[in-house]
Amino acid sequence: TDVDTLSERPHRRFNPLRDEWVLVSPHRAKRPWQGRSEDTAPDFTPAHDPTCYLCAGNTRVNGAVNPDYRGAFVFDNDFPALLDESIEVTSEPDPLFRAGPARGTARVICFSERHDLTLPELPVPAIRKVVDLWASQLEELGAQYEWVAIFENKGAVMGCSNPHPHGQIWASDFLPNEIVREDDAQRAYLQAHRTALLADYAAREGADGARIVEENDHWITVVPFWAVWPFETLVLPKRHVQRLIDLTDAERDALAEHLKRLCTRYDNLFETKFPYTMGWHGAPMSDGDHGHWQLHAHFYPPLLRSATVRKFMVGYEMLAEAQRDLTAETAAAQLRELSATCHFTNKGS
Amino acid sequence: TDVDTLSERPHRRFNPLRDEWVLVSPHRAKRPWQGRSEDTAPDFTPAHDPTCYLCAGNTRVNGAVNPDYRGAFVFDNDFPALLDESIEVTSEPDPLFRAGPARGTARVICFSERHDLTLPELPVPAIRKVVDLWASQLEELGAQYEWVAIFENKGAVMGCSNPHPHGQIWASDFLPNEIVREDDAQRAYLQAHRTALLADYAAREGADGARIVEENDHWITVVPFWAVWPFETLVLPKRHVQRLIDLTDAERDALAEHLKRLCTRYDNLFETKFPYTMGWHGAPMSDGDHGHWQLHAHFYPPLLRSATVRKFMVGYEMLAEAQRDLTAETAAAQLRELSATCHFTNKGS
Ligand SMILES: O=P(O)(O)O[C@H]1O[C@H](CO)[C@@H](O)[C@H](O)[C@H]1O
Ligand SMILES: O=P(O)(O)O[C@H]1O[C@H](CO)[C@@H](O)[C@H](O)[C@H]1O
Repeated sequence: TDVDTLSERPHRRFNPLRDEWVLVSPHRAKRPWQGRSEDTAPDFTPAHDPTCYLCAGNTRVNGAVNPDYRGAFVFDNDFPALLDESIEVTSEPDPLFRAGPARGTARVICFSERHDLTLPELPVPAIRKVVDLWASQLEELGAQYEWVAIFENKGAVMGCSNPHPHGQIWASDFLPNEIVREDDAQRAYLQAHRTALLADYAAREGADGARIVEENDHWITVVPFWAVWPFETLVLPKRHVQRLIDLTDAERDALAEHLKRLCTRYDNLFETKFPYTMGWHGAPMSDGDHGHWQLHAHFYPPLLRSATVRKFMVGYEMLAEAQRDLTAETAAAQLRELSATCHFTNKGS
Repeated sequence: TDVDTLSERPHRRFNPLRDEWVLVSPHRAKRPWQGRSEDTAPDFTPAHDPTCYLCAGNTRVNGAVNPDYRGAFVFDNDFPALLDESIEVTSEPDPLFRAGPARGTARVICFSERHDLTLPELPVPAIRKVVDLWASQLEELGAQYEWVAIFENKGAVMGCSNPHPHGQIWASDFLPNEIVREDDAQRAYLQAHRTALLADYAAREGADGARIVEENDHWITVVPFWAVWPFETLVLPKRHVQRLIDLTDAERDALAEHLKRLCTRYDNLFETKFPYTMGWHGAPMSDGDHGHWQLHAHFYPPLLRSATVRKFMVGYEMLAEAQRDLTAETAAAQLRELSATCHFTNKGS
């Protein structure tokens, strides 16, 4: 099947990391959009907002007072979805009414004291501080919990409930669904091929080039062959690394710069603070052999055609299968052709 | 594990139909919402809109002219995601770059000529016409395609691109991901228990009562024990039925009334035309034994607290596991206590 066919005709692609398909309909990109138009971010955001729960020195909703922090800052989520307590499961598992315990904790990471600067608008050393905080949180919480979810919901369209740039951490004593899927798929691949799935994948994408968005000595970011979201990307280290805590100093510096360039390309695409969900997947913190795992970050951004027209994963997607219009190769080329430094005004540094 | 514990403490529940977990955080329902507020539907909608591509007698975007139809009306989607053609897959499957053919077709079903009446606002006989059209489309397209996805995206928040009440049909020569999951789970259950998963489940929910929302002689609708969306429901026939085309006359009449009452409860909940994705799952149209399949409809509605505050399935949900705040039992009780006839104004019949 040659690339020209895939660029024009409807087909499916297989995601080996989640063991499922995506329907690709390149011929459909031209359909008109009469549906909803998203709000864009406000034009002016102050550097410090006295009404913001996350700004330095302010009082949070539960009465706690934030210290006068500078740089990345972590604190407990005032409304955690997980608590450090466990229900007791007394009965035999009933196949139709099966419940189980869920112990965990949740934290918030402000990327910096600046209310107005999103991740790519921060200088590289400030992003490096975020990378270090991700790693130290993983180390600390990973001592107690098997899984530490490190993620960011950016933009109101992605359910972000506070405009102060921040990420979240939800740690749990269980492996969530998505991690079980990736664990199974990576383990099976290692057994079949004797190499790690995502290490192989990074090497092949590096050699091919068609889906590369951003690359440096230590990192490569591609629109994966099986991408579901229009401008979805996958961030991969070039070395076989299992977890954020295993990154060297040089890899952390390179990651900070890489993320700044990647997210700036996103911002430049539709000249907006590009919304997304992003997060890290690495080997679980439990003992045992996790050699099949390769550290990676997923970026799932919803925008499709402009700052106000998004892709909706509804209907067919919810009930049948994810579907996309533009191909991974087209999306990668668009992102690659953009500048990796901010090219429009009304932005920070 | 007793129901009181589950109503208050964080826990996980298992979805046996999709073979995955959902995190339930009942203690979190009180968290404040400062995030995005959704638009509600406009106050006035005309019965016929001369600018609407779907209204009777109007010209569509591709120049085709709609007949002067009355009642449910089906036509080909002008921008189908699937085409009746297949790419040729020439190479051996590459585990990391695997593509496959996808042949199919897409249609649109206008529920009636009325631009202003959503499904529950139509009289029962008009809804029965929709049920019959769903069944006859399944019969017709099922002769050519293995899977016929029948669904509705309702409301701008669910990506609906035209306000004229309508559903969609996407037929394909492959079984989409979600269907493969449900097929596997139902087959395994039949093998282990010698009864159909959802037939057992409907009987047990009928006896229990805590999650029932609506019920008549032929149908039962519950908020499933493992619901992900705040007010998600599962519509089940009381008899073991594999497909929409197998429904008797009496079951179709009862279904029309049942859907009207269910969707009116939804509308009454937040006094709005309640948005959702809904769709039918039944046995694939291929030959072979599908005795493990039980026909059902899923309703996936996004609203959480009001007509303007939705649940966002982002961040943790996309990267780890679905999470909900209110329990299935609380959601079912709320819907059950509402009237099944419309109790607010600014609505149709
Ligand atoms: O076909 P429509 O209504 O234009 O589009 C809508 O439904 C489709 C099928 O669920 C989705 O793929 C689209 O993302 C959504 O906007
Ligand atoms: O925790 P927040 O920012 O209030 O809430 C947001 O992120 C959570 C974790 O992804 C989601 O469960 C919520 O639906 C979303 O609105």
